[in-house]
Amino acid sequence: MVTQTPAVDLLFDAVASKGHVCVGLDTSADYVPPAERKKAADDAHAVLAFNTALIEATFDVAACYKVQIAYYEEMGISGLCAYTKTLEYIRKKGGIVIADIKRGDIADTATRYAKAHLAGEFKADFVTLTPYLGMDSVEPWLSQAQNNGGGAFVLMRTSNQGMRDFQFLETNDGKKVYNKVGDKLAELAAKYAGKKGYGIFGAVVGCTERQEASDIRKNYPNLFFLIPGYGAQGGGAQDAALLLREGNGGVVNASRSIITAWQKEAGSQNADNAFAALAARKAAIKMRDEILLETNGRK
Amino acid sequence: MVTQTPAVDLLFDAVASKGHVCVGLDTSADYVPPAERKKAADDAHAVLAFNTALIEATFDVAACYKVQIAYYEEMGISGLCAYTKTLEYIRKKGGIVIADIKRGDIADTATRYAKAHLAGEFKADFVTLTPYLGMDSVEPWLSQAQNNGGGAFVLMRTSNQGMRDFQFLETNDGKKVYNKVGDKLAELAAKYAGKKGYGIFGAVVGCTERQEASDIRKNYPNLFFLIPGYGAQGGGAQDAALLLREGNGGVVNASRSIITAWQKEAGSQNADNAFAALAARKAAIKMRDEILLETNGRK
Repeated sequence: MVTQTPAVDLLFDAVASKGHVCVGLDTSADYVPPAERKKAADDAHAVLAFNTALIEATFDVAACYKVQIAYYEEMGISGLCAYTKTLEYIRKKGGIVIADIKRGDIADTATRYAKAHLAGEFKADFVTLTPYLGMDSVEPWLSQAQNNGGGAFVLMRTSNQGMRDFQFLETNDGKKVYNKVGDKLAELAAKYAGKKGYGIFGAVVGCTERQEASDIRKNYPNLFFLIPGYGAQGGGAQDAALLLREGNGGVVNASRSIITAWQKEAGSQNADNAFAALAARKAAIKMRDEILLETNGRK
Repeated sequence: MVTQTPAVDLLFDAVASKGHVCVGLDTSADYVPPAERKKAADDAHAVLAFNTALIEATFDVAACYKVQIAYYEEMGISGLCAYTKTLEYIRKKGGIVIADIKRGDIADTATRYAKAHLAGEFKADFVTLTPYLGMDSVEPWLSQAQNNGGGAFVLMRTSNQGMRDFQFLETNDGKKVYNKVGDKLAELAAKYAGKKGYGIFGAVVGCTERQEASDIRKNYPNLFFLIPGYGAQGGGAQDAALLLREGNGGVVNASRSIITAWQKEAGSQNADNAFAALAARKAAIKMRDEILLETNGRK
């Protein structure tokens, strides 16, 4: 078997050359310009055509893409075909794609998911995982990740209101539940690491809580972060920068603020996919530069 | 809109008339008798034919079916077609099906998942959910559940080794994380309940830890339980019975011990689907009767 470069190393290089933006293709057919949606054979085709236009327009400014599978599942089997074709399109161009599938299951079941999403028909570079079941829902993904140059981001401290329900519970040693998840992930990262100082499995850490951000970055230096919460959820470039390390170590996701940017542009009533793609490019560049401005000050 | 009977009420009735067995159709093509697999157009068709034979043979002894989507995703799009057809087959017969998808995502994303799995192409009666993100990953499912007579089982205390990693963490008020999940689910169940004394959303509670089983049942009387861990994972009828309430209030899942029961029968080298279905029926009846024996003692 050929030794594969871990996806986290490729992502490190992509951040170094392109900046920190992860474009979230959480694409509803409602986000496609109406004229294009009407023209398409069905909503799934409309979404796929929209995605490919946006990928072309943002490829040199996006470190990676994150595709949220829920938006495609909503459309049924045809939506899942658009999902796989979106993943393929990004990977064939040499891009990096995170499958936002938040899987969490154990043993044989986890292995089957891993085969599907890191090797099989739904192959992505990274997946997202949810840790409630325990580390035996994370570890079965390692072997497919190693064999296929794949990786994972495990939910640690998210960016939604509800994170306070369980992630923030204080345990009897004064730590929070999300620290316990982080501790386990750091152990795993120490054992399974790429060549750039990061584990092949990283963590999802939102940029909505400025206070704890520096501590989290300091306590988990070997975890690469997938950072949600930018823009609509209230996180800014300064918040995101606190979660980076020496200007790298994380990608910052924005979905709607990039893929629906066209709706706020003058002339949007006549928008086509090219128009939407240009607006997405502008939004991605603006976000990239906002974050770079903050991280350059911190390097 | 027609008011739908909540799935939990239908499941209560099914348990009362058929017993507690939930047949887990975690069907790998490897579990299909080789002669049948060879005959089928592809693995997905082999799995679907096997499933339908088993559903026919177990229908009068199974309170419900649980279909683990990972086994189907492993086969790609064709596998997901077999998944939807399995769900449809059960529902058209008037059976109850739990989609074991363990989804966990927030807000708009959760709503899209809910549309897909409680109303759309992947429609099931129940889904399984994972709570790490918080209750805002559970609540968005309520509206689709109410409109479609659906329900959910949220992971609370599972049956795998790794459950000790996070679910068993003791919080600073002496409770465990899984109690905190249970408390929130009980609050929700008080607000959104069927007519049989149970919330429309229940909990996944494994039957591998006898010690805490009675406490969990006592503390959460309004939660209907989906109970894994029977058989292969070490739980027995006595353990499962501790999680039931007045002979109802839970279904006990068994997957491999039922669907691969044919492999242990004399003559298995010449097995066809009819042979496998008969063995599954025998295994399901045995399990049903083991549990009934225990619960009758407790009624």
